[in-house]
Amino acid sequence: MNFDVFAKDCPSREVLDHLTGRWGVLVLAGLRKGPARFNALRRRVDGVSEKMLAQTLQALERDGFVHREVLAAMPPSVNYSLTPLGESTADHLLALIEHLEANMPEVLAARAER
Amino acid sequence: MNFDVFAKDCPSREVLDHLTGRWGVLVLAGLRKGPARFNALRRRVDGVSEKMLAQTLQALERDGFVHREVLAAMPPSVNYSLTPLGESTADHLLALIEHLEANMPEVLAARAER
Repeated sequence: MNFDVFAKDCPSREVLDHLTGRWGVLVLAGLRKGPARFNALRRRVDGVSEKMLAQTLQALERDGFVHREVLAAMPPSVNYSLTPLGESTADHLLALIEHLEANMPEVLAARAER
Repeated sequence: MNFDVFAKDCPSREVLDHLTGRWGVLVLAGLRKGPARFNALRRRVDGVSEKMLAQTLQALERDGFVHREVLAAMPPSVNYSLTPLGESTADHLLALIEHLEANMPEVLAARAER
């Protein structure tokens, strides 16, 4: 079977939305720095609400990008990490982020011209 | 100046949203196949509404990723193409898309396990 994100009914389109939705990019890229508990991850991804972070993690876990582990501690806590597929995907997102950050002066110049 | 998409007030965060929003990825990747008029581009990006395509193109043009050219034809028409910055950015997005499409069997397997 061939997958094509440009076709609206292809299941890959929905997965692309999870990866690239408002928070998916930042959560995956944030976890590339290493596994994290919920609150630590929330601090890495500045501005995300508890609800949006929970929803984003749930979608990424369901798609097999994120691994969720409940730690037997008191109080119990949950650790999030990337699966191998999550790591390779996050590397593409980090490359995009680095490219964007490096070219922000050009973006701001384009805006100033208008 | 250093830009950091993880910081919520950094201007790079908003640009990342334009690139990775619901349609930004597909419009940039779609234009990587070559310049297109509005309606041809709308056919490439299956499922996008006229309104969303217009809004997405406007944001990408403002950020300097897309070039808009009004053609002196009857009836007048508008041609969209990538700027050099848009091309290099689209290449990162295409790498992400190819990676995702190639790994969809693993994504679907992860979903089936739950």
